[in-house]
Amino acid sequence: MKDKNLSDRLTEQQKGSHGVSGILNNETKFHDTKVSNISKSVQALLEKDYPALSFRYRKSILKQEINASLQKIDKSLGQTLFVEKAEIKPDGGLLEVRDDYGQWRVILVSEAKYQGKDIENIRAGTLVGTNNNQDLMTAGNAIERAYKNISEIANYMLAESYFPYILFLEGSNFITKDITIIRPDGREVTLKYRSGALNRLDRLTASNYGMPINKNLCENKFISVNGKNIMLQAASIYTKGNGERWGRTEMTEIMLDIAKTSLKMLGKDLFAQITHK
Amino acid sequence: MKDKNLSDRLTEQQKGSHGVSGILNNETKFHDTKVSNISKSVQALLEKDYPALSFRYRKSILKQEINASLQKIDKSLGQTLFVEKAEIKPDGGLLEVRDDYGQWRVILVSEAKYQGKDIENIRAGTLVGTNNNQDLMTAGNAIERAYKNISEIANYMLAESYFPYILFLEGSNFITKDITIIRPDGREVTLKYRSGALNRLDRLTASNYGMPINKNLCENKFISVNGKNIMLQAASIYTKGNGERWGRTEMTEIMLDIAKTSLKMLGKDLFAQITHK
Repeated sequence: MKDKNLSDRLTEQQKGSHGVSGILNNETKFHDTKVSNISKSVQALLEKDYPALSFRYRKSILKQEINASLQKIDKSLGQTLFVEKAEIKPDGGLLEVRDDYGQWRVILVSEAKYQGKDIENIRAGTLVGTNNNQDLMTAGNAIERAYKNISEIANYMLAESYFPYILFLEGSNFITKDITIIRPDGREVTLKYRSGALNRLDRLTASNYGMPINKNLCENKFISVNGKNIMLQAASIYTKGNGERWGRTEMTEIMLDIAKTSLKMLGKDLFAQITHK
Repeated sequence: MKDKNLSDRLTEQQKGSHGVSGILNNETKFHDTKVSNISKSVQALLEKDYPALSFRYRKSILKQEINASLQKIDKSLGQTLFVEKAEIKPDGGLLEVRDDYGQWRVILVSEAKYQGKDIENIRAGTLVGTNNNQDLMTAGNAIERAYKNISEIANYMLAESYFPYILFLEGSNFITKDITIIRPDGREVTLKYRSGALNRLDRLTASNYGMPINKNLCENKFISVNGKNIMLQAASIYTKGNGERWGRTEMTEIMLDIAKTSLKMLGKDLFAQITHK
């Protein structure tokens, strides 16, 4: 009994100091850094491709700026502010281009979210849960916070006809097919992508109106219904459906694709610079 | 030294079993039950006020129904579903009315969120933080998850010209003026409503485009910008700015107000029933 108690306490200690949450935080941080670095490298590539244009990268945008943008559209909007310095900080920051009138226009906003460590845990042979006897951890719902920044940037860009917001997803909560992982002891564990305890993609698809995942949705859709015209600002959601990590090259390609769509959509307001007139 | 350690361990134990998070969970649960009960009592009041109409209450809506509603508007929308039984469960459920064509139309969706126990803690003389030496707890960001359900219901109601979504807020993270609380030992602690460590209202106001708080925003706003028409679906956010709890009567009044606005907006499709033709 005594040994059992000691062992329990050690396990608790391990959980506290180096356990799942500790690892998760490190991974998340690493990933966030990566997406902001890639965003900066995309700026360098754009500067090479479009030498006539000026770009800038910034880490955050003030809520005050978003309010000012809303007020410009309609005086009744963007009125509230409680914390003066409130700001929005997407993981990957914001890329902007200077238009022919000297205004900075957003051309890329990105976030990278990692949720679900089941694949790593199974590979390492780590059992999880309160009693450390489960292969899989029931997925959490923290990812739902992603909507906040999406809504803020959508409001900031309400006057634009494009929405260059990328949400990169990876981790076992975002797989799009069944995956079988082998534990160190040889036992196989299958992650069922349609399991309600595992998959959290449905928690995010309201942000793209249920349009396809892994697709450039930067150009806004305009639909007509009951005599009304509605503009849809959809986030472009990209997931690593096979449970692997995003690579630098593929993230760069996706970000370039979205940023170039933004530039095209802004063509009218960049025309003078592009044509050197 | 030994006694100090024992005392630390006891404090840890208390935190684990009956501490802040335990109390918070109980409070949140109680509150959620309350808002769903009030929602049902609003149904009874509406049935009395409008005997010609049929109402129903339900706890949740399937993601499948939201997808079907989106597809009806445009085939490219509402395509994705990973977990077949995925559903959206606002705390206060959904109230619906049957229109002249036999369709159920949403007239009220409500959520009640409690965040920030500082007032209760100070009144009880409980110090918080890792070392139990702070008056105030730095506010968390869990409230940002509120956007998910707002977006889902907004998508479901994209064809409507009204959005009857109420977000009731209470707790020290949502105050709108400075509040001074007296501890049991007589010391006064002031909660500064503009403090970035305390106030979380700015994290929610993207959902109403920065329009006023504590106001019925059920009727959608249509704005014109750069030759486009845009429909805004804004959540109606109500906060207990003085740090007190919401009372049953005032919640009922607000919910009735929003529900009746919905009925008015649906007038054309309820006309036959109302006029008994």
